[in-house]
Amino acid sequence: MQKFYDFPEFVELTPTARVEKSRHGWRAKCLQRLIRLDLPVPPTVALPVETVKAIATGQMPDLAPLTNVFGQDFLISVRSSPENPEWGGPGTVLNVGMNDAMHQRLCASHGQEAADALYLNFVQGYAIHVARLDPDMFSAEAGDGALEQALAAFAEEMDDDFPQDPLLQLREVLRSMARAWEGTTARLLRQAKGAPAEATLGLVLQEMALGIGPGLSGSGTIQFVESVTGQPQITGRFRGQSQGRTNAVDTHYLTSDPRGAALEDVAPDVFAQLCSYSPVCRTRLREEMQIEFTIESGRIAVIDAVRVQRSARAAVRIAVALAEDGVIPRDEALLRVEPRALTELLHYQVDPRAPRDVIARGIAASPGAATGKIVFSASAAQAAAARDEPCILVRRETQPEDIRGMHAANAVLTERGGMTSHAAVIARGLGLPCIVGCNSITLNSRDRSFTGPKGRVFREGDIITVDGSSGEVLLGEAEMLEPALDDGFRTLLRWADNVRDIGIRANADTPDDARTARNFEADGIGLCRTEHMFFDEDRLTVMREMIFVDSPEDRAAVLERLLPMQRNDFIALFDIMAGAPVCIRLFDPPLHEFLPHDREGLRELAEAVGRPLSEVTRRCEALNEFNPMLGMRGVRLGVTLPEIYDMQARAIFEAVIEAGRRGSVIVPEIMIPLVSASREVELVKTRIDAVAAAVRTQQKAQFSYRLGVMMETPRAALRAGEIAEHAEFMSFGTNDLTQMTYGLSRDDAGRFMSTYVNQRVFAEDPFHILDIEGVGELLLIGAGRGRATRRDITISVCGEHGGNPESIAFCRAAGFDYVSCSPFRVPVARLAAAHFALLAPKQQQ
Amino acid sequence: MQKFYDFPEFVELTPTARVEKSRHGWRAKCLQRLIRLDLPVPPTVALPVETVKAIATGQMPDLAPLTNVFGQDFLISVRSSPENPEWGGPGTVLNVGMNDAMHQRLCASHGQEAADALYLNFVQGYAIHVARLDPDMFSAEAGDGALEQALAAFAEEMDDDFPQDPLLQLREVLRSMARAWEGTTARLLRQAKGAPAEATLGLVLQEMALGIGPGLSGSGTIQFVESVTGQPQITGRFRGQSQGRTNAVDTHYLTSDPRGAALEDVAPDVFAQLCSYSPVCRTRLREEMQIEFTIESGRIAVIDAVRVQRSARAAVRIAVALAEDGVIPRDEALLRVEPRALTELLHYQVDPRAPRDVIARGIAASPGAATGKIVFSASAAQAAAARDEPCILVRRETQPEDIRGMHAANAVLTERGGMTSHAAVIARGLGLPCIVGCNSITLNSRDRSFTGPKGRVFREGDIITVDGSSGEVLLGEAEMLEPALDDGFRTLLRWADNVRDIGIRANADTPDDARTARNFEADGIGLCRTEHMFFDEDRLTVMREMIFVDSPEDRAAVLERLLPMQRNDFIALFDIMAGAPVCIRLFDPPLHEFLPHDREGLRELAEAVGRPLSEVTRRCEALNEFNPMLGMRGVRLGVTLPEIYDMQARAIFEAVIEAGRRGSVIVPEIMIPLVSASREVELVKTRIDAVAAAVRTQQKAQFSYRLGVMMETPRAALRAGEIAEHAEFMSFGTNDLTQMTYGLSRDDAGRFMSTYVNQRVFAEDPFHILDIEGVGELLLIGAGRGRATRRDITISVCGEHGGNPESIAFCRAAGFDYVSCSPFRVPVARLAAAHFALLAPKQQQ
Repeated sequence: MQKFYDFPEFVELTPTARVEKSRHGWRAKCLQRLIRLDLPVPPTVALPVETVKAIATGQMPDLAPLTNVFGQDFLISVRSSPENPEWGGPGTVLNVGMNDAMHQRLCASHGQEAADALYLNFVQGYAIHVARLDPDMFSAEAGDGALEQALAAFAEEMDDDFPQDPLLQLREVLRSMARAWEGTTARLLRQAKGAPAEATLGLVLQEMALGIGPGLSGSGTIQFVESVTGQPQITGRFRGQSQGRTNAVDTHYLTSDPRGAALEDVAPDVFAQLCSYSPVCRTRLREEMQIEFTIESGRIAVIDAVRVQRSARAAVRIAVALAEDGVIPRDEALLRVEPRALTELLHYQVDPRAPRDVIARGIAASPGAATGKIVFSASAAQAAAARDEPCILVRRETQPEDIRGMHAANAVLTERGGMTSHAAVIARGLGLPCIVGCNSITLNSRDRSFTGPKGRVFREGDIITVDGSSGEVLLGEAEMLEPALDDGFRTLLRWADNVRDIGIRANADTPDDARTARNFEADGIGLCRTEHMFFDEDRLTVMREMIFVDSPEDRAAVLERLLPMQRNDFIALFDIMAGAPVCIRLFDPPLHEFLPHDREGLRELAEAVGRPLSEVTRRCEALNEFNPMLGMRGVRLGVTLPEIYDMQARAIFEAVIEAGRRGSVIVPEIMIPLVSASREVELVKTRIDAVAAAVRTQQKAQFSYRLGVMMETPRAALRAGEIAEHAEFMSFGTNDLTQMTYGLSRDDAGRFMSTYVNQRVFAEDPFHILDIEGVGELLLIGAGRGRATRRDITISVCGEHGGNPESIAFCRAAGFDYVSCSPFRVPVARLAAAHFALLAPKQQQ
Repeated sequence: MQKFYDFPEFVELTPTARVEKSRHGWRAKCLQRLIRLDLPVPPTVALPVETVKAIATGQMPDLAPLTNVFGQDFLISVRSSPENPEWGGPGTVLNVGMNDAMHQRLCASHGQEAADALYLNFVQGYAIHVARLDPDMFSAEAGDGALEQALAAFAEEMDDDFPQDPLLQLREVLRSMARAWEGTTARLLRQAKGAPAEATLGLVLQEMALGIGPGLSGSGTIQFVESVTGQPQITGRFRGQSQGRTNAVDTHYLTSDPRGAALEDVAPDVFAQLCSYSPVCRTRLREEMQIEFTIESGRIAVIDAVRVQRSARAAVRIAVALAEDGVIPRDEALLRVEPRALTELLHYQVDPRAPRDVIARGIAASPGAATGKIVFSASAAQAAAARDEPCILVRRETQPEDIRGMHAANAVLTERGGMTSHAAVIARGLGLPCIVGCNSITLNSRDRSFTGPKGRVFREGDIITVDGSSGEVLLGEAEMLEPALDDGFRTLLRWADNVRDIGIRANADTPDDARTARNFEADGIGLCRTEHMFFDEDRLTVMREMIFVDSPEDRAAVLERLLPMQRNDFIALFDIMAGAPVCIRLFDPPLHEFLPHDREGLRELAEAVGRPLSEVTRRCEALNEFNPMLGMRGVRLGVTLPEIYDMQARAIFEAVIEAGRRGSVIVPEIMIPLVSASREVELVKTRIDAVAAAVRTQQKAQFSYRLGVMMETPRAALRAGEIAEHAEFMSFGTNDLTQMTYGLSRDDAGRFMSTYVNQRVFAEDPFHILDIEGVGELLLIGAGRGRATRRDITISVCGEHGGNPESIAFCRAAGFDYVSCSPFRVPVARLAAAHFALLAPKQQQ
């Protein structure tokens, strides 16, 4: 090995060479590993990032020493090798070194046709990508005279003959690739994939294995698991007389197949040799690899290998299989699956194996897929929802006034906008599949249609499928993969549970939610909102009557009628959740939510409560609020109309006894919402304890319960020290806490949220990603003060942020006991929690 | 002096006796001072609080040693002597020791009539207040046989003759008074006046000076300043042949008076002697005293002295006069005036000297007085306000739905409720005179009238005056004292300014406000809200047009039309405030406040902006918000529609230049509202700095300005460190900050605030008194972090709390630069700030 003049050394990939991913890139590192495994890799040299960087700035090293590896008349490929394969890089250039002399030699050894094709390919590629000449002049198919024409055109344009010096060619190729990496578009593209601004490029130079010639020659790829399912299955392709990924002359199946020729049959020993690489790679590279190979006259050359592309489902299956086979430890299997990727499994997905009629493509802005009729306005979406017809809201871009329509739609598609546009931000918040910036369609609002590529017109009512994971719009009802949790998934998450050190509960209001929570193996219910229990038709009437009585006694009497219904609600929940904790939030919404707002409704209400319409109207109006979010709700109702909480507490306690008699043991957690002063807790606690005592006496039964608070106001966090005197647990409701900390109503923020995110006022929608700096500090203050008063107080988060990996990391670092999130986010949360436990183990207690 | 058996000693008041206010009470202490001044005080003994407490629990001391002071056959008075005269105490009992033998002696010395009257008075008082017999049996006027009848009735009721042993009488009187102090009503009454729960009673025993008999005899009081104005003037009364405050036989004026006999003329030397007490008391007691005296046969006995009762106005005048005469230092003069008492001077007051037709009395719940027509509903109040007719809202009790009516009324009167009732809490918040719990009236809602005492009926439209300072309801238009600031007031406040170490600015939006602020000598304007500048009819039209244009260019063009108007607004303000700082808050309210909400208004708007009604309606609806308090307002408008702030900044800068040309120098402070992230400030600052640069260039003029933020969200306080990087000042808007910290809308809190205060959830309405524990902590966090970034940052409070003494104490302790409050509260704030500076001087820098 010899040093380049005035440059860091290049490295020939031998088993013992010092190759580092950070310096030579992932591809160089991977190839060295293949070499170490004795796979037949042709001679290969890696150019480190600093060399490439120097080339980009015009300092070309002396390339002559390369002839020590590749010989004087070489024929090599040049491939990108950034640190991370996701970051892309300029495309591969094949056959560098091709010139008249080589052409001559190839004519003799491989025949004129093959030699012409190779030379033409190289001249075209060089002219377009290296010399940057007009592509139209170099697009001729291989054939009579095409090579000569290309060489003549090159000479004409460049005022010089096509370069014959292999080292000169190589210099130009290297310069071109090094500069392409620095281009603005390339930079933006890789940064969008998570590359840092200072990401650098390594290059890999490899002796060509031609793939053409006499005998079995060609190129292909092979992998040993299926990319969608992750199941063992040999897949790939082999193309005879082809190089790399260039057009094939002659395609073979790999395994025996009735549809046509297969490598397995044509060259069983070659096939067997390829198959022998599977266990080698799997156990030694500890990964399922896709191998790129060339066969030249029956001799295999392995020229590259990459991790098998995989769906989330396959990722889980592969990781679990590797761990079960003892190839990798379970911890590593856990870390190999990105938690957010599980989201895909919890949404409907378009089956990647099914045919797709893609009518347009845009930016995949919110994952999942949904099928429905096209609608063009929020009101049409609401109307469709009212008819229980799934619909897709299509807009040029969404406006705040579209929010209700977005709630009603099954997916959203916009012609304009980016990842932080209104539609994108809101849809992610709502968990709605969404594609934005789909500028291959043109909306024609007037006749309620849009025009797709090639002039295809789609009208209101036509059925389309939006795939928010891929950004594709499909015609008709696509075949979907149901959100399904297979054994691999369950196994992985059980491993996660063994590792994680923070609880994951689910927010679940109904028996359906609770079943989902159990199915996703949540540790319990962290937030059961009870208001839905008051909105059923028969209950609503009682609620309204309750609002219209004047004395506490009458109120209690009316509420008595809700008691058996609420008790049954809780029994159903407790039966499902037997043995797990269930945290029930007492009644929270403002009373006016229960009142009619139109004249007809008011008239009916007047009849129902037997009061004059004028009085009913007046009292309904009096209950309206300027800022309902900041009004008479939560514990404020509990203090002023305590009979509501009395009834709820009784229903809970009686349900605990009844469920217990059936064998479902529950220690309910009763949570007081919207607390801002400790005295509120004290007042409610006194009454609830009294109800408990009364129920115990009346029913001659024992039961336990825990009483705590939902921390939703900044003041509650500040006064947590006092509040903890009366509370056994504190659960931060980060939705409301975010609203109050920012002074920002979630319902109203849509009007400017996208502007704010675009202008970097907020890094992200704080209702989507927990604001660690502001709201997070209040969480820390509250937790610290609560614990100072009561060392064993249970602390948690039950806002919608609960399921976000960022929030979980934060809560775990703060020593919270659990987070609670929507049931569908429980698996992601379980895995994310395991990741954090593995990556940042806590100090031993 | 001899010890009581088994009890702490009593004390005879000699110049050298050890008398302490905390142990013997204010009266004992005051009498000792008079004795030290050689005033003719009769022999007096003080019973300390522990003795009285023991008596109340049944342990009566041996009283015999008292005869060493008063003699065997004594005639003495017993008076209350609690630590603070405000705390009241049982009424004085005169002539203890009166019995048949004494009666005989008095018949001889003073004549039968006088002796009978004295004995009858004592028997009646003793029977009713000590023996607790039926008052009806002891109500006869003095006259033939009345004494004998009273003695007989007593003997009949008590089965025993009227006690003849003076010591027995005294024991019973002491027991009765000691127990009265412990009664529940007495306890509540004194606690309402600020007495602590454990407040104790001392008693003073004094040899009677009879005030009846031959020669000039009688009793009276004299003071040397007028109680309402505080001006020097001898006032008081003298009643011949009378004792203490009993019914007079013969009333004299003190000074010569054409209307009748005057002490000055009848007994000039006695009068001169009384007058000689004035300078003595004033210089030695350092206070204006009212002296109670008795004259017995031309000999003066000074039996008591109390601080002259005084209006706030008189308190100021007296304190200033004492300081100007060198009797007390200025600091003490400042401390002698209670800041909140100045409030009285800033409200209209019923002239205490004018005749009053009091038709009912209730609880004085919110100070000030107002006259108006009676209305019985909120809607009637609003209608009256619309006609510009002052009105008084009379309700059984107020409900949340009455709030708009309360806003419209000039005063509120309720039949029911206490100091923390809805009406009381809200009225104090609104600064509205209010009387609650006026149960001497009965509302007859049906015929819109109320019945007062003695069956007097008052109807809707009748004019009454509510005196919220005294709790009196007067018929008709009472004579009022205007809120006027005399020289004494100004002098005192200038002294306060020399002492205080925190700035006091005024919140002032209009030139009128600014003039008031200047008149009250505020240090500048701390909050000039600009939104009113957009609500004038002609401006409103422009605003609406601005809302309806789509492009930034069009918006800027429309706003251009507001520029000259705004500039003139600011010029007017700057001319008034020349030389003082003016802090201008940029546009804050949500845009929908500018839109019509009825169909007619929408139609007009559609015509004005030349758009279809349907579109106008839709866009207006789209701008409505669920929680306007938490919506698109403040800096959120500034970031999304930056042209508004651009225009305002230009108007301010051009006004500064124009005002400067007229000689009014102003360095405006531009304040950005509703900040929650530092980037908001950065974005606005960049544009405002650009506007400033443009104006400087265009106008070829120089000017300075300061840019800062209004801190209204909890997050702003938490992120103050970053925000301070772009802000030269931070002013806490404690109204909004309180709303967000509690998650509580001020507009909606009325529904439960009184319940909350009654149940002690909140010690006080946090919108009325700053919540030190919660909101206060955020102020401290914000100030601390702001200063850590920028050491010289200006920090202040500009919410309505700013003028409260509690807030001032807090802000001063936290080292804030100034507080800003409504102009009418500036004087109170200036004095309160001086108090704190005197009572808790800061450490030397």
